[in-house]
Amino acid sequence: MKFDTIIRNGTIITATDIFRGDIGIKKGKINKIGISLDEDGDITIDATGKYIFPGGIDPHTHLDMPFGGTFSSDDFETGTIAAACGGTTTIVDFAVQPKGANLKETASIWREKAEGKAVIDYGIHMNITNMDDEILNEIPLMIKDGYPSFKVFMTYEGMRVDDGILFKTLKQVNESGGLTCVHAENFHIIKCNVERLLNEGKIEPKYHAISRGPLVEGEAVGRAIKIAKMAEASLYIVHNTCKEAVDEIARAREEEYPIMGETCTQYLLLSEDEYFKDGFEGAKCVMSPPLRNKENFKYLWKAIRNNTLQVVATDHCPFFMKQKELGKESFDKIPNGAPGIELRMALLYTYGVLNKEISVNKFVEVTSTNAAKIYGMYPKKGTIAVGSDADLVIFDPKKEVDITSEKLHENVDYTPYEGFKLKGFPEVTLSRGEIIANKGEFVGKIGRGEFLRRNSPIIL
Amino acid sequence: MKFDTIIRNGTIITATDIFRGDIGIKKGKINKIGISLDEDGDITIDATGKYIFPGGIDPHTHLDMPFGGTFSSDDFETGTIAAACGGTTTIVDFAVQPKGANLKETASIWREKAEGKAVIDYGIHMNITNMDDEILNEIPLMIKDGYPSFKVFMTYEGMRVDDGILFKTLKQVNESGGLTCVHAENFHIIKCNVERLLNEGKIEPKYHAISRGPLVEGEAVGRAIKIAKMAEASLYIVHNTCKEAVDEIARAREEEYPIMGETCTQYLLLSEDEYFKDGFEGAKCVMSPPLRNKENFKYLWKAIRNNTLQVVATDHCPFFMKQKELGKESFDKIPNGAPGIELRMALLYTYGVLNKEISVNKFVEVTSTNAAKIYGMYPKKGTIAVGSDADLVIFDPKKEVDITSEKLHENVDYTPYEGFKLKGFPEVTLSRGEIIANKGEFVGKIGRGEFLRRNSPIIL
Amino acid sequence: MKFDTIIRNGTIITATDIFRGDIGIKKGKINKIGISLDEDGDITIDATGKYIFPGGIDPHTHLDMPFGGTFSSDDFETGTIAAACGGTTTIVDFAVQPKGANLKETASIWREKAEGKAVIDYGIHMNITNMDDEILNEIPLMIKDGYPSFKVFMTYEGMRVDDGILFKTLKQVNESGGLTCVHAENFHIIKCNVERLLNEGKIEPKYHAISRGPLVEGEAVGRAIKIAKMAEASLYIVHNTCKEAVDEIARAREEEYPIMGETCTQYLLLSEDEYFKDGFEGAKCVMSPPLRNKENFKYLWKAIRNNTLQVVATDHCPFFMKQKELGKESFDKIPNGAPGIELRMALLYTYGVLNKEISVNKFVEVTSTNAAKIYGMYPKKGTIAVGSDADLVIFDPKKEVDITSEKLHENVDYTPYEGFKLKGFPEVTLSRGEIIANKGEFVGKIGRGEFLRRNSPIIL
Amino acid sequence: MKFDTIIRNGTIITATDIFRGDIGIKKGKINKIGISLDEDGDITIDATGKYIFPGGIDPHTHLDMPFGGTFSSDDFETGTIAAACGGTTTIVDFAVQPKGANLKETASIWREKAEGKAVIDYGIHMNITNMDDEILNEIPLMIKDGYPSFKVFMTYEGMRVDDGILFKTLKQVNESGGLTCVHAENFHIIKCNVERLLNEGKIEPKYHAISRGPLVEGEAVGRAIKIAKMAEASLYIVHNTCKEAVDEIARAREEEYPIMGETCTQYLLLSEDEYFKDGFEGAKCVMSPPLRNKENFKYLWKAIRNNTLQVVATDHCPFFMKQKELGKESFDKIPNGAPGIELRMALLYTYGVLNKEISVNKFVEVTSTNAAKIYGMYPKKGTIAVGSDADLVIFDPKKEVDITSEKLHENVDYTPYEGFKLKGFPEVTLSRGEIIANKGEFVGKIGRGEFLRRNSPIIL
Repeated sequence: MKFDTIIRNGTIITATDIFRGDIGIKKGKINKIGISLDEDGDITIDATGKYIFPGGIDPHTHLDMPFGGTFSSDDFETGTIAAACGGTTTIVDFAVQPKGANLKETASIWREKAEGKAVIDYGIHMNITNMDDEILNEIPLMIKDGYPSFKVFMTYEGMRVDDGILFKTLKQVNESGGLTCVHAENFHIIKCNVERLLNEGKIEPKYHAISRGPLVEGEAVGRAIKIAKMAEASLYIVHNTCKEAVDEIARAREEEYPIMGETCTQYLLLSEDEYFKDGFEGAKCVMSPPLRNKENFKYLWKAIRNNTLQVVATDHCPFFMKQKELGKESFDKIPNGAPGIELRMALLYTYGVLNKEISVNKFVEVTSTNAAKIYGMYPKKGTIAVGSDADLVIFDPKKEVDITSEKLHENVDYTPYEGFKLKGFPEVTLSRGEIIANKGEFVGKIGRGEFLRRNSPIIL
Repeated sequence: MKFDTIIRNGTIITATDIFRGDIGIKKGKINKIGISLDEDGDITIDATGKYIFPGGIDPHTHLDMPFGGTFSSDDFETGTIAAACGGTTTIVDFAVQPKGANLKETASIWREKAEGKAVIDYGIHMNITNMDDEILNEIPLMIKDGYPSFKVFMTYEGMRVDDGILFKTLKQVNESGGLTCVHAENFHIIKCNVERLLNEGKIEPKYHAISRGPLVEGEAVGRAIKIAKMAEASLYIVHNTCKEAVDEIARAREEEYPIMGETCTQYLLLSEDEYFKDGFEGAKCVMSPPLRNKENFKYLWKAIRNNTLQVVATDHCPFFMKQKELGKESFDKIPNGAPGIELRMALLYTYGVLNKEISVNKFVEVTSTNAAKIYGMYPKKGTIAVGSDADLVIFDPKKEVDITSEKLHENVDYTPYEGFKLKGFPEVTLSRGEIIANKGEFVGKIGRGEFLRRNSPIIL
Repeated sequence: MKFDTIIRNGTIITATDIFRGDIGIKKGKINKIGISLDEDGDITIDATGKYIFPGGIDPHTHLDMPFGGTFSSDDFETGTIAAACGGTTTIVDFAVQPKGANLKETASIWREKAEGKAVIDYGIHMNITNMDDEILNEIPLMIKDGYPSFKVFMTYEGMRVDDGILFKTLKQVNESGGLTCVHAENFHIIKCNVERLLNEGKIEPKYHAISRGPLVEGEAVGRAIKIAKMAEASLYIVHNTCKEAVDEIARAREEEYPIMGETCTQYLLLSEDEYFKDGFEGAKCVMSPPLRNKENFKYLWKAIRNNTLQVVATDHCPFFMKQKELGKESFDKIPNGAPGIELRMALLYTYGVLNKEISVNKFVEVTSTNAAKIYGMYPKKGTIAVGSDADLVIFDPKKEVDITSEKLHENVDYTPYEGFKLKGFPEVTLSRGEIIANKGEFVGKIGRGEFLRRNSPIIL
Repeated sequence: MKFDTIIRNGTIITATDIFRGDIGIKKGKINKIGISLDEDGDITIDATGKYIFPGGIDPHTHLDMPFGGTFSSDDFETGTIAAACGGTTTIVDFAVQPKGANLKETASIWREKAEGKAVIDYGIHMNITNMDDEILNEIPLMIKDGYPSFKVFMTYEGMRVDDGILFKTLKQVNESGGLTCVHAENFHIIKCNVERLLNEGKIEPKYHAISRGPLVEGEAVGRAIKIAKMAEASLYIVHNTCKEAVDEIARAREEEYPIMGETCTQYLLLSEDEYFKDGFEGAKCVMSPPLRNKENFKYLWKAIRNNTLQVVATDHCPFFMKQKELGKESFDKIPNGAPGIELRMALLYTYGVLNKEISVNKFVEVTSTNAAKIYGMYPKKGTIAVGSDADLVIFDPKKEVDITSEKLHENVDYTPYEGFKLKGFPEVTLSRGEIIANKGEFVGKIGRGEFLRRNSPIIL
């Protein structure tokens, strides 16, 4: 027997283990792991001195997404190329239900966006914006078709759901074997603040942050959790940014309710100081929820360590500065979102593992394994074990990189991490056994990515 | 000098003290307190073996209130007579803003209801149901006129306010030196539950309780508190019934936010078991929030002891069974409310003090002193001190009473406390020095009660 | 009738009330309180613009106490004169059991120290240092004789008790109707630290603090509480200094165990910075537990506000610098203690009430009322009510004082509060109706103080 | 190439993963893992339908241990045979320092006990009972020699250490790269209780439990943790039994102190009801700490789930009933301990995994992986990964067993689990690739077990 590819002598790291060995890949799967495999491979990769991580999973991306009259600037081609170059081999993107469309139609729209473009495998979350009985009835069907995760917004005019619909959604999704995700911010408070600030002539980007402080988020997180308790449903809170949110999740988990949570790279590394930069610079980091003060970093890292939060995603949603300028005269018109898909793995390694915030096993857990389990892709994705897809990152812990946006593949003209220094970077990325990125360059085939029919969540 | 009235040899009890003495009253005020006063009085009351408490203050009553097409059955005459007979000498009633009326007009309507009828002094809370800029601007004016407390509903179709209006109200009231009170239940969840239950043909009274469980309240209490934090305002949560609500207040107070809370007699003594009685019996206790399971009693008593809750009120809002029958075919049509104004003092003495749940000083604190301070009536009301109004209860700790509704003065055909046994009952009630009730009978003059222009709250 | 003394037109303040009035005193008792008393007095005091507080109660003093081969420098004459001048009208002093003496003998020794000297009334705590069956059997007898409070040390070689004896003491005292007080520090850890520090040649006063950090105290407080739980006994922790101690008490009180606690003026106002002053200056504040870092101030004030701590005492135990020099070559030989009895009331008024840490009612509660209740002296002491002893402080809220030790009556050559500024100071102190201090000078009779036979504690 | 042994087609389970595969073993190590390995093995095991777990690690055993004039009845031969039959492939036994011996000598004594007898690999903890400067200085040397874990008793006359020695031990061990383990119970309280009970003629086994209640343990756990904080050292609390203990660990871990804890099978499954059985039956479960009431089960399971406790061990320490009778006339003379080494894995599978208390991954974590990491044996022991020792359990999830002591290999005449029903039992146990137990019978060679030189702990 001969392997398609063999990776020799790497330090293999899972959510629990670290060991030296060879990995033999065949037909896209990890076929063997051995102290020293006898067989050859068509391709041999020498991983001496390198770490081998499960390919990153980013379960929170927005590719080619309409927002405020424009579209996020990465489509499934550019976005997944950037992901691949950064060591991410799976994404789950949000299919936002357009007015009038049902869930099946919404899924089709998103499948079309991805087909022929995506270079890594992708799942699709159903982002419900208009709930009625038809949609409610579609939920079990969508789960059967491989879409077991549903997201609702508690804010955003025209897309948000009220508490009653949130309650019904949680109940129906849970009873059908799916998982509800929530974007938690208090709509009415934000609206009230935005009106007041604009009335006072406060139009600059920083007022975006001021209009939606930590309690705007913390309140909604607490409310969503209590509604989930009433619905006897599991719940996943996306992009938690602050102590106010994390404390609510911690309390519910202490009572052993099935509440899970994610944060994103930017909330661990960037602060509200970004909004106070000169001119329109602050617009680069206009996203919702906004960046918080630095005090929150330590709460978020702790929440990751003690399993209050299970996932670090990106909420990747880039817009060119040109697009951001839609909000030049009014902060509430700035398209919300920022790029991040490409640097998540490397940033978390340098600022998480090397800074001793988390162990290297915890790094694997929050960048890959937990997302795979929660989102019904495990053990196909999310670990290094025989039988799993050979989605692997060969990571060079010695490689030093100074971040500038020019080096990146994201289709956008800036990165919020400009000037950050990294130690450790993905050298080779494999997706189902194929080398798709090498030393920071994409070397795979456009459109090779496959749609992932996912299963029911594992509650962590 | 001669006193108008002298009370000899009672055991005088305040929120902190217990001592033996004589009380001399002149012109409605406590003029002297002495070990043994030399002067005589026109009237002499021998209080040997009796306790003398500050007259009860019930800051949560609904007299002559329109609700669902009918009116609560006690008006200011019958309701305050019942109060007087039970040892309560002050109420604060809620003036509910009718559609189209501003606050000044609303206050006038309520003043008219009371004038010439009330037999004890009364304040008026402004219960805002329609907020706009005019109303917002009226708030400081109303405070100046002696109406420093404002209530909003988070539930009840047509009367409730959304989170944005709650936020604005809290801000404006606080900045103007007033206090916001909130009825906290989640509107959308209740609505959702009611629709589902009625669709399933579940129309009996017990479904009222099932449609609005403890988390429906706990969620809204938590939300109101966080909105108060955002508004940097003080807040008073009315009628807390359960651990889920009390825990939220306790947490906020531990962080030293100015959040206060009340419970009512019925939540300490009656349970959801009432709803499971035969036939339409359960309607007697249909109120919002509903009665809870008995487990909650101990949490509420503890919350009183450790100062999480400061006040025990009644939410007195009686309807004849005839009126209750509006909801015979649909629990959501049953007028919400039950009587309680007459028995609060005696019930809390027997089931609180004698059952060792609270000390007799704490009894005074939660039935009178704290409400006086919080609602801007102290030291005129709420204590036994020279210069204060001679609102006093001479309480016979040996008097035994078996409760039946026939003995009561409330204008309604039942009491939820039927069959309860009491040890200790008010013997004489004085309001501004006048004996208005004696051995359970009203002996005062109709309409003698005065409107109380109240001051800014003292935050406890 | 004529009063012995009448105080006109003061603002009378109790733990719950504030009101204007006259106080008529006869035979040492408060005889009448009135809006305006008609009768004259042999002596009339005009208290217009002044506050009238219940006389201060300091339940933690060490007068004429042997310690490390010397005696605390204030005896019952000088110490109680200082107390009187500062507005304190009652102390409870600790009678430390000498080797070989039983409790009765110990009490006699202390009674002799006080007799003919004390100028204010005094109670005596029994400070047990050698426990055996005889002593255990004496406990109920001592309680019957008016000594219901017992203290043990968890540290101090030769005086400390082990956990078994603490357990037995708690059980016996509680069953006999008394209250156990504990000085909580971990003996073995201190010993270990002292040995190490001295071995390293670290002999200066600051090492006293370093040898017994906050956890040395917090551990022992936690342990004492758990032993009290096992003994099913009430417990009072003396002189709490830090978050580590207060958190333990708060937790036990949250579970409604009968655990109470005191702090002292110095722990609210002075920090460990004192130990880092030049030369031997630090010795002035060598006491046990030592002063802590300033962070702790806010926890202690909060603990007072939320009733975790009930009493602010002084642990007054002065030594001349000459005496302190016993420890010049070895910090562990410095006599432990500092003066404080005279300034407690004024310091707490300025730094507590005026700085908005506590209300003026809370001030009365923690300087007087609570100690009276806990230590079985209420209502004779601790409040302003008819029938109570006329122990009163007429307090001038406008009087400004710059503290220097020369102005004080404590028999010691320094005050740790040198240079502190006060606004508000006692003008007249009355003990059982007699004016004993006036404008900061003692005007009473030596030896007029009486021994207080105290009753069982009221658990707060 | 040919494997020494190949295990085909099992379901391989680690602390994070579950997957189907073959395991090829060579020279005692896991050489390859593959979907389907091509090579043959000298021995082939078909594991279809079976689980493959990492061999169990029991880090708390007492073999051949002197106690109260007798010895625990399992020596290293019988004890490790029982372990092997039950799926445990590694133990760490406590070498108890005899009077007068230093640590090196103590280790030698224990090595001799094990040599030529043990059938599985074993580490040795140093159980210090007499600390002085010599012993303190030996600590780093012992760590260098592969003994990185040290235990002290807070109770047991003649063996216990005081708080000062605990403090010094924690400091020295931590600074030298080792881990301190503590048996936490309050010596003085137990002594006091035992004396009182015996004086009252209460001699039966049940009084053992009554003399050392949950707070006796909880107090000592809290104290040990605070002393560890003061020593800035990591700490591992052995055999936690109750809420009172677990709460202390949870609090410290919430503050991110390096405090870890273990419980034992018996505390999860057996209650104090055992002590109330007829006659001398209760002696079977006399151990310290004693069994608790059933309420504690749920707290312990929760503590395992949320990572407050990391390890489930046995504290295996059997005595024949004959030996137990040493305490027939006085419960304090009953040798402390009970058997458990053989059934731990199977009991935890049935009562933990099948009862849905824990996931099967968590089962692996607490029975093997965590102990390996904490006790410096990872990755040689504790996981299924290439390069690790082939210590494996092939577990038949369908096998049903009714427990009776006759079926067991423990050298003792009873099991506390008599009559318990199991579903799932080890079928084959491999140690370093050798089949040492098969269908419940030992098939290996006496004395084949090797001493494990262990490394520094990984703090979990």
